[in-house]
Amino acid sequence: MNPYIKEDPWSIIEMGFEPERHEISESLFSLGNGHMGQRANFEEHYSGASLPGSYMAGVYYPDKTRVGWWKNGYPEYFAKVLNSTNWIAIDIFVDAERLDLATCQVQDFVRELSMKAGVLRRTFTATLPSGRAIQVDATRFVSMKHKEIGVIEYNVTPLDADATITIVPSLNGDVMNRDTNHGEQFWDSVACLHDQSRAILTMKTKKLDFYVTSAMQCQLSIDGNTVKTTPTLSNVANQLSNQYVIAAKKGEKVTLHKFVANVTSRDHAIDQLHTVAQAAVLHAQTIGYNQLLREQEEAWDLKWKESDITIEGDVSAQQGIRFTIFQLHQTYSGDDERLNIGPKGFTGEKYGGSTYWDTEAYCLPFYLSTAQEHIARNLLIYRYRHLDKARENARKIGFKKGALYPMVTMNGEECHNEWEITFEEIHRNGAIAYAIYNYVNYTGDRDYLSEYGLEVLIEIARFWEERIQYSEDKQKYVMLGVTGPNEYENNVNNNWYTNRIAVWTMDYAREVITNLQESDAQALLRIREKTQLLDEEIKTWQTISEKMYYPYDDKRNVFLQQDGFLDKELIPVNDLDPQELPLNQHWSWDRILRSCYIKQADVLQGLFFLSDRYDVATKKRNFDFYEPLTVHESSLSPCVHSILATEIGYHDKAYEMYLRTARLDLDNYNNDTEDGCHITSMAGTWMSIVYGFGGLRVSADRLCFTPSVPKQWTSLSFKVIFRHARILITMTQDTVTVENETDIPAKLMIGQSAIDLAPYTHQTIAL
Amino acid sequence: MNPYIKEDPWSIIEMGFEPERHEISESLFSLGNGHMGQRANFEEHYSGASLPGSYMAGVYYPDKTRVGWWKNGYPEYFAKVLNSTNWIAIDIFVDAERLDLATCQVQDFVRELSMKAGVLRRTFTATLPSGRAIQVDATRFVSMKHKEIGVIEYNVTPLDADATITIVPSLNGDVMNRDTNHGEQFWDSVACLHDQSRAILTMKTKKLDFYVTSAMQCQLSIDGNTVKTTPTLSNVANQLSNQYVIAAKKGEKVTLHKFVANVTSRDHAIDQLHTVAQAAVLHAQTIGYNQLLREQEEAWDLKWKESDITIEGDVSAQQGIRFTIFQLHQTYSGDDERLNIGPKGFTGEKYGGSTYWDTEAYCLPFYLSTAQEHIARNLLIYRYRHLDKARENARKIGFKKGALYPMVTMNGEECHNEWEITFEEIHRNGAIAYAIYNYVNYTGDRDYLSEYGLEVLIEIARFWEERIQYSEDKQKYVMLGVTGPNEYENNVNNNWYTNRIAVWTMDYAREVITNLQESDAQALLRIREKTQLLDEEIKTWQTISEKMYYPYDDKRNVFLQQDGFLDKELIPVNDLDPQELPLNQHWSWDRILRSCYIKQADVLQGLFFLSDRYDVATKKRNFDFYEPLTVHESSLSPCVHSILATEIGYHDKAYEMYLRTARLDLDNYNNDTEDGCHITSMAGTWMSIVYGFGGLRVSADRLCFTPSVPKQWTSLSFKVIFRHARILITMTQDTVTVENETDIPAKLMIGQSAIDLAPYTHQTIAL
Repeated sequence: MNPYIKEDPWSIIEMGFEPERHEISESLFSLGNGHMGQRANFEEHYSGASLPGSYMAGVYYPDKTRVGWWKNGYPEYFAKVLNSTNWIAIDIFVDAERLDLATCQVQDFVRELSMKAGVLRRTFTATLPSGRAIQVDATRFVSMKHKEIGVIEYNVTPLDADATITIVPSLNGDVMNRDTNHGEQFWDSVACLHDQSRAILTMKTKKLDFYVTSAMQCQLSIDGNTVKTTPTLSNVANQLSNQYVIAAKKGEKVTLHKFVANVTSRDHAIDQLHTVAQAAVLHAQTIGYNQLLREQEEAWDLKWKESDITIEGDVSAQQGIRFTIFQLHQTYSGDDERLNIGPKGFTGEKYGGSTYWDTEAYCLPFYLSTAQEHIARNLLIYRYRHLDKARENARKIGFKKGALYPMVTMNGEECHNEWEITFEEIHRNGAIAYAIYNYVNYTGDRDYLSEYGLEVLIEIARFWEERIQYSEDKQKYVMLGVTGPNEYENNVNNNWYTNRIAVWTMDYAREVITNLQESDAQALLRIREKTQLLDEEIKTWQTISEKMYYPYDDKRNVFLQQDGFLDKELIPVNDLDPQELPLNQHWSWDRILRSCYIKQADVLQGLFFLSDRYDVATKKRNFDFYEPLTVHESSLSPCVHSILATEIGYHDKAYEMYLRTARLDLDNYNNDTEDGCHITSMAGTWMSIVYGFGGLRVSADRLCFTPSVPKQWTSLSFKVIFRHARILITMTQDTVTVENETDIPAKLMIGQSAIDLAPYTHQTIAL
Repeated sequence: MNPYIKEDPWSIIEMGFEPERHEISESLFSLGNGHMGQRANFEEHYSGASLPGSYMAGVYYPDKTRVGWWKNGYPEYFAKVLNSTNWIAIDIFVDAERLDLATCQVQDFVRELSMKAGVLRRTFTATLPSGRAIQVDATRFVSMKHKEIGVIEYNVTPLDADATITIVPSLNGDVMNRDTNHGEQFWDSVACLHDQSRAILTMKTKKLDFYVTSAMQCQLSIDGNTVKTTPTLSNVANQLSNQYVIAAKKGEKVTLHKFVANVTSRDHAIDQLHTVAQAAVLHAQTIGYNQLLREQEEAWDLKWKESDITIEGDVSAQQGIRFTIFQLHQTYSGDDERLNIGPKGFTGEKYGGSTYWDTEAYCLPFYLSTAQEHIARNLLIYRYRHLDKARENARKIGFKKGALYPMVTMNGEECHNEWEITFEEIHRNGAIAYAIYNYVNYTGDRDYLSEYGLEVLIEIARFWEERIQYSEDKQKYVMLGVTGPNEYENNVNNNWYTNRIAVWTMDYAREVITNLQESDAQALLRIREKTQLLDEEIKTWQTISEKMYYPYDDKRNVFLQQDGFLDKELIPVNDLDPQELPLNQHWSWDRILRSCYIKQADVLQGLFFLSDRYDVATKKRNFDFYEPLTVHESSLSPCVHSILATEIGYHDKAYEMYLRTARLDLDNYNNDTEDGCHITSMAGTWMSIVYGFGGLRVSADRLCFTPSVPKQWTSLSFKVIFRHARILITMTQDTVTVENETDIPAKLMIGQSAIDLAPYTHQTIAL
């Protein structure tokens, strides 16, 4: 356990300044509200190691790719999330000496992220090289209520003597990404308006023409009394600064309130950006700092009401799971169907901020259970809107029909280019179909199918139909040349998971068509006309389903990850020299590929998704075979294993796997948190509690729980929303209490007991 | 057939200037002498499209790599052959107007490469934009006798009026590669000496510190009479120029003889480079242009004496095969065991000028049969000298013992980085072992084994031993995760060819050990001590050999290219839409991978190498199965198929395949000759005549022929050197004549007739 984050149920707290950990803290203490995000960079100048990150959701850059040898079908670009205008900057000078924590003696440094309120506060005293001492108390947040608004209160108090405090808030468009393929700057400046009444800066991406306009308003006060002072204005190299010079007596607190609006051409007409930004920032200023702060607390209070998890008897676990929930809410609010969830959210640049199958496979359940229905629905509509691009993508790599969703995307176009991933990790298409099932099954929103879902299912089923071929040799349908979820195998034949999810998609598409024929034949007709779906196709899906080949080991009675898997030397991970782990840092790629070691759940991912189709004995046999060969070198691996282990009854294993996911970032287990937090795997952490220990499933329109609280915990409680009812579930080692917090009745099942829970009632069941 | 190269038995002739073909011609008319090479760039300034190429053998640059995602074990650099100091430049001004064929009216343009003499000549008349007309007659060669010397005779004659002709020969070190990964210049200037008596320029590579020093001497004459004139000197940006101004009357021929020495730090001490270069160029000047030209003709005459092939009844084929022989001799002379044969020789930058398995698999036979023994031997010693690097390479990717030769190399280090090639196309190791067998079998030089060969064989066998693993499932040894010669499959299990060549290597190593035990036990002891070879290891090789798994199709009785090959849809290439060919330009990479289509001989490569182990019926079955699925999209493919087809008796197919390789560059079949000529595949062309139509094999120390002259030809004759005797073989449709041109008796076999051919005798056999 890494002691530099203090254990606390509601806050992330760092005590003492450790420059070598600063980039990790910048990730951990990140703020976001779904519209924008901000790493915990210092407001004032800092010359030490730092990864600046101010991100606007949906604003990205198609960076030139970097490849060894080009392959036909590769996309032209690799999208990058953009570090955009630095809006937090507030430079401080004490008698003309610049504050820079890298050169000061820093004392009483405390950084605290209140997850309850969504507020970051930093306090310290600094002794500058000259010997001058000041106290700083800086608080900031990005408003959950006013999405385009960020607010900072920055307090400076001279401690040793009277001082001239110079405060220079600015908007700085002269920023770079750390992650660029060819060292280019991605922004051009477009315009600024800068006078005593306003500071507005508009930057534009060099490609795709995203405009970001930032407007700033500042207020100064001394010991709480407003000070009217005229700043000196400066505009150099796309940096608009207001310089305020204040004579402060020893012990007097000089306060700057900086209000910023960040608006983009994604939301507003380009010619309106200045006006909108100016109006928004003035509105924020009118509301005032204290009221904005209260609103922020209220907004987060509501989030917690809907989605909190409490763990009694384990503060560390409590902090871990709240951090997970907090970051997921910061990343995606579901208001904008054009947005999605990047693997690092707003906490770093890595993985380009793009959308992966992580969203459907790992994140969707969180939003399904903890947010209003339209939020998860918008995640699905995101893919629906990309259907044409997915069709194009399939055409581009030679398919006559169907749709192949991209591996990595910003706008529906593929932007990854390793052939073994881009072209072959096609199981992602199955996850996108599965998410539709998952959503409909959870919400009961069958209209989604006729409105959007079926069209996607048909196009994915068509893709599988064309991708699967008949083997004369096997007299079965096969799927050659794929990469499964276990990316430590590339270009394999008959990956069980991919074969299975492909057939499942074709089966589900047929089932939805059959049901819709009964419930709304008119709607079906419309969709069939739109998609030009032939009876012949549906029949082919059925034929493939009946004659699909699945690799199987008759001796062990397990599904085989792929053809030829049994030719490998099957040596359990535990028998490897621990010095060789993680394999991806110690073994050459080809050695990994030809070894038996599994990066993340593959066959087991299928048993998790299609949990109701397989009995516990089957799950156990496959778990017993595969888990010992699994190195869990993807952050997405332990959660699925934890959930399955709970189901099988391997409680110690389940808890071990839970620990590997729960505090991954807080304790920097993978030694890479400086790049950003593992946002999508956090959703997996949430699943390992709610689906794993809570045993949540949906069956026949009923929310079912099979409790299994780890023996290390006194109790576990969490809230889920199901069919608009919000249920608080509290589990101890012996009892389960369910409480309906809404006026909507809820149909539940605890273990084998069906419970119809009336509004505002609760019920306790002994286990 | 592309008519712009005139058919001629001894020359490559282009009549008329076509700027859009200029880069192709620059490749075709390239000159080389094994030490240096020069594309057919114009001497005078040319503003049109051109790929400048002056190459010094063995001088290369470790360019920074460009990858998408780094994989453990990748090398740090990708080596590049270097475009070095432009030593041919001679700028021409007519009354101060610069000659530039891109801006002139050009008439009577003829470019002729005499393959008989190794000389390039270009003549034309040009009308400049001002209307001034001149005739130009430029001849150049790189000396086969004086390897460091290049010579140019450049004649200018004013045609319309008297003129001031300004001639500016120069040495220009300010050059770039077209192929750079990050747009960098690879050279720094070091020093120059430039005065009325000398022009010497030394450039140094920015990495690895290769020095190249060029020294120039010039002579001027008018109508053959030497003119003494003092040039104006200029030295700007690493370009040393001598400007001569000559008043020439209409019809007077102004002649510049430019002698250049290019010497490198590979051959001389750095502090001696200036001295050596100056001495060399002065020596050349003393010999004089005409004598140098005679020496050049003599040197080439000798080459042709040893290696000519004549085809009667087909000028086009005659020209094609002479071009092949000519280019191979230009590329590699075998004098320097540190050198090897890049895929483009000295004709372009593509493939980095590095060494591939092409050398052992395709080029070695040409040098074995057409050059003195030490030349092929040096090709083997090249790999012996790299043995330590190959051991390091194996360690780097995780092998405890053995050696893995690199896929692409300059100095023994791997410099390619696609995992599916670098890590997995390991059959190259087998080709390097096979080349040792091939050399010893052909030359009878068994001493090579004890001196060098066995050590390499042991280390390669050890690599295979570790790379092969035991499959409990199959109860056989298997080899997983390889890429075979057919690069249209990646990361397959049990590639038949790789399994076969691996076991063959282990068998051959054991055989050599057994033989050496009898013939020279002392030598064996020394090698076993040096390599620390255990009896245990030799035994393991035997065990693997006995229990190796080879994929096989019992139904068709053919070897299977790899596990799972029969799951593919086996549709012959002929049934594809011709619009889709070549596949590598029309299909996405994954579609190619999961298709049945074969880029180049794979199983058939094994049947070619190990020809004496398989009967004709086996070859026929496999050919019948694989050839129809083969797209021959590697220039190395048709030759092997042509040879096998001849052996099987598919004469039309053999000739069809021969045509695909024979004039590949002259007719620019693959539409890529502008990048350079396909030098290594030319050796395959040579093989398809001598091994294919000539049926050359070596068996029991006897040189065997099975003639099969294509019916399109009247006769075919070629020379081969065998055990120091040079034999001229002339084949018609009905007879074979063998003539021993040396004083060494030769043991031959024509068809089933053994012939012991006495010195200077000949014998004719009816077929």
